Amino acid sequence: MNELKPTHEFKHKHLLGLADYSEADIRYILDQAKYFREILDRPVPKVPTLRDKTIVNLFYESSTRTRLSFEMAQKRMGADVVNFSRSASSTKKGESLKDTIRNIESMKIDMVVTRHESPGVPHFLTRCVNAAIINAGDGAHEHPTQALLDMFTMQQLFDELKGKKIAIIGDISHSRVVRSNLIGLKKLGAEVTLCGPKTLMPLFVEDLGANISYNLDETLAWCDIAMALRIQLERQDAGLFPSLREYHDKFGIKMPHLEKYPQFTIMHPGPINRGVEMESEVADSDRAVILDQVTNGVAVRMAILYLIAGGSRV
Amino acid sequence: MNELKPTHEFKHKHLLGLADYSEADIRYILDQAKYFREILDRPVPKVPTLRDKTIVNLFYESSTRTRLSFEMAQKRMGADVVNFSRSASSTKKGESLKDTIRNIESMKIDMVVTRHESPGVPHFLTRCVNAAIINAGDGAHEHPTQALLDMFTMQQLFDELKGKKIAIIGDISHSRVVRSNLIGLKKLGAEVTLCGPKTLMPLFVEDLGANISYNLDETLAWCDIAMALRIQLERQDAGLFPSLREYHDKFGIKMPHLEKYPQFTIMHPGPINRGVEMESEVADSDRAVILDQVTNGVAVRMAILYLIAGGSRV
Amino acid sequence: MNELKPTHEFKHKHLLGLADYSEADIRYILDQAKYFREILDRPVPKVPTLRDKTIVNLFYESSTRTRLSFEMAQKRMGADVVNFSRSASSTKKGESLKDTIRNIESMKIDMVVTRHESPGVPHFLTRCVNAAIINAGDGAHEHPTQALLDMFTMQQLFDELKGKKIAIIGDISHSRVVRSNLIGLKKLGAEVTLCGPKTLMPLFVEDLGANISYNLDETLAWCDIAMALRIQLERQDAGLFPSLREYHDKFGIKMPHLEKYPQFTIMHPGPINRGVEMESEVADSDRAVILDQVTNGVAVRMAILYLIAGGSRV
Repeated sequence: MNELKPTHEFKHKHLLGLADYSEADIRYILDQAKYFREILDRPVPKVPTLRDKTIVNLFYESSTRTRLSFEMAQKRMGADVVNFSRSASSTKKGESLKDTIRNIESMKIDMVVTRHESPGVPHFLTRCVNAAIINAGDGAHEHPTQALLDMFTMQQLFDELKGKKIAIIGDISHSRVVRSNLIGLKKLGAEVTLCGPKTLMPLFVEDLGANISYNLDETLAWCDIAMALRIQLERQDAGLFPSLREYHDKFGIKMPHLEKYPQFTIMHPGPINRGVEMESEVADSDRAVILDQVTNGVAVRMAILYLIAGGSRV
Repeated sequence: MNELKPTHEFKHKHLLGLADYSEADIRYILDQAKYFREILDRPVPKVPTLRDKTIVNLFYESSTRTRLSFEMAQKRMGADVVNFSRSASSTKKGESLKDTIRNIESMKIDMVVTRHESPGVPHFLTRCVNAAIINAGDGAHEHPTQALLDMFTMQQLFDELKGKKIAIIGDISHSRVVRSNLIGLKKLGAEVTLCGPKTLMPLFVEDLGANISYNLDETLAWCDIAMALRIQLERQDAGLFPSLREYHDKFGIKMPHLEKYPQFTIMHPGPINRGVEMESEVADSDRAVILDQVTNGVAVRMAILYLIAGGSRV
Repeated sequence: MNELKPTHEFKHKHLLGLADYSEADIRYILDQAKYFREILDRPVPKVPTLRDKTIVNLFYESSTRTRLSFEMAQKRMGADVVNFSRSASSTKKGESLKDTIRNIESMKIDMVVTRHESPGVPHFLTRCVNAAIINAGDGAHEHPTQALLDMFTMQQLFDELKGKKIAIIGDISHSRVVRSNLIGLKKLGAEVTLCGPKTLMPLFVEDLGANISYNLDETLAWCDIAMALRIQLERQDAGLFPSLREYHDKFGIKMPHLEKYPQFTIMHPGPINRGVEMESEVADSDRAVILDQVTNGVAVRMAILYLIAGGSRV
């Protein structure tokens, strides 16, 4: 039985990215998430932890699963939740982001969960207001709650990630998921290989502190976890790879791989392009823990909301 | 005083359509709805029945009254409600319906209320997930909660529907409301006449087990209830009838009809096209129970949510 | 310590505009709002006052801060809240406003907060239904909750508004904010000056019972409060003033004004066009109480919801 940990030992006011968090911070969150993961399996999966909090979900970029996951985490903790999306917003009327957030804060809210297409927006918001800011994805920069749920899912498989071999496969260049995972996994002592076509690798990829591979088979033979990234279909139009079919041929995980390399487990942040990042049968096989990632996402976000709320109201 | 019935005598896990429900099932729901209808008249029209449930309203087709009616039913029963509509969804990103619903279920939700323009989608969803599925309208197939609220409203008028004469007037061909009502009403022993222009009758209409009429006066002289269906204005462009004016001339219910045939009561699933399906004065007359249908809709949906929730969490 | 006042001494069923409210009514609301303003500063800023109420926010015109402010007020008072915006509505299907509101009322709701681009819509709604109607802005007619929060903010500065000098600066012609403020401020005995370019003054402006000025310096020298109005950027295209730069030159509040006229406080209903109605530094200076207005807006709306709810359920 896991227990609720004291929030005063957790010193962060915001969650902007894993770059600011120490190994101990990350382990503290993952540990706390176990408690909330158990709650999700109870007949009544609710706790009144945030009954006195008001949270605004300020999403400037459309999102299904992340927004839903946060909203479910919030509602299960009893928070008052107000959703705000770009289409309904006065950004159309030309109001600056700073004025929008300061106005929202003036309504006496406690936390803002935000997604924005521009990197650095969550950091900027912390300089505008006193409310706690949680980054739900900022451009190609960070997506820390995704990385935390990924690491939580890996811990369910291995207990300890030190020395574990994690392959991240696909569009390395444009992915905030890679970035946050790479930062977090290295802090926990895992070894990471980035695998994909050269055109989807960032400049200076050698400096990222990960192994680089352009060969899927070699990577799958090596790894404990193969995390395939979503291919943004618009990259094809930009000429970054010849075709989805060709991408799938060279970097898609296929059924024969599962037989040939029986040691690795498959993850994906979703939503999957079936037949691109992996064959449909691969996604549905018992080697994939993709839906576990989704369930864990709610638990991890509950843990973060709990810990951040500990010191949020100023 | 009506009482809360035991849910264990209700064996269905889903509500996909009335085709799957027996006469006894339908009577059980309608009976239960009386309890919730009374609650709506209380000073505090709330019950904590679903306090431990999370419900997702997954609407792929826009809807005002059905979505609002479900949401009010859910909130009055204390459920946590998360809304998900197409515009905000990752269907735009090309995710399959199956992946979307499996992801949502992985967040540990109990029930999904769904509307989709394609017939069969709710059935398909039951094959993807374990959550309970409630059909809020699937293409031209079924709209079972609408038919249940219609039958509940009829029972308020007549107590027993056996032998009652129900006329359904208008666009028989494209209506999920007709389909569910026809199935339900026949199970309860009512006699149904379908009335409308030939161009809005389905092929093989004779096989539906209802009387067919192309004459409004004859139909109104006969019936206890005249249920007018909404004319989808786009049908006119498709050339299925010459003009709204001509439709109204031949099939619109008018004030003289009320005087000439004093025995029938008027229903309409809404939203009404005033001056098309009926004269505006007819809709506002005391012969119409159209707003009672709306109120009863909340009660009937509360009953369904209660009964389905009895066995939903797996 | 402020106390909750009895609602039975407040005789209004609706809040359509300040034109219908007496000086005593307005003072009663502002007094009551002090109680809710204190609640907002509590560690748990919630009261269960509206736990048994269902409120529909029926917004036909997009809005960020007003909708959010009402929603937060409602949720902090424990009401069940259902949002309904045009894009999701069956108005697209051609349903009349009257039918929409009567349908919504039939679902047994208690209050409707509504915004519409046409003046008079809230009044019209009261003739369609028994539910309490609160006007959140109707065309260029009234925006009573904005005026009430403005007056509340002024009272925080001066205690008593009788004899105080209030300047309202900008697009007088198209503003519902001006209209409601002018009505309310005159009832409380304040003196008002309307200041702006001639092209943005209404016909018969002399009959409004306010001083008229076309000179910003003269106005700022005179006033205790300078309330700048938002310039709708589309007015420029309509040729009502030559350019935003020219508007700012003649009617924008600038830093030298603050030094030259040290007596006045700055208000703005938001969202601000920085560099148009005032210099950015002016908006951020300690002479501005613009964010206090936002906080007070939640408190004032709580007070209104509380008082209106006292007699709302019929």
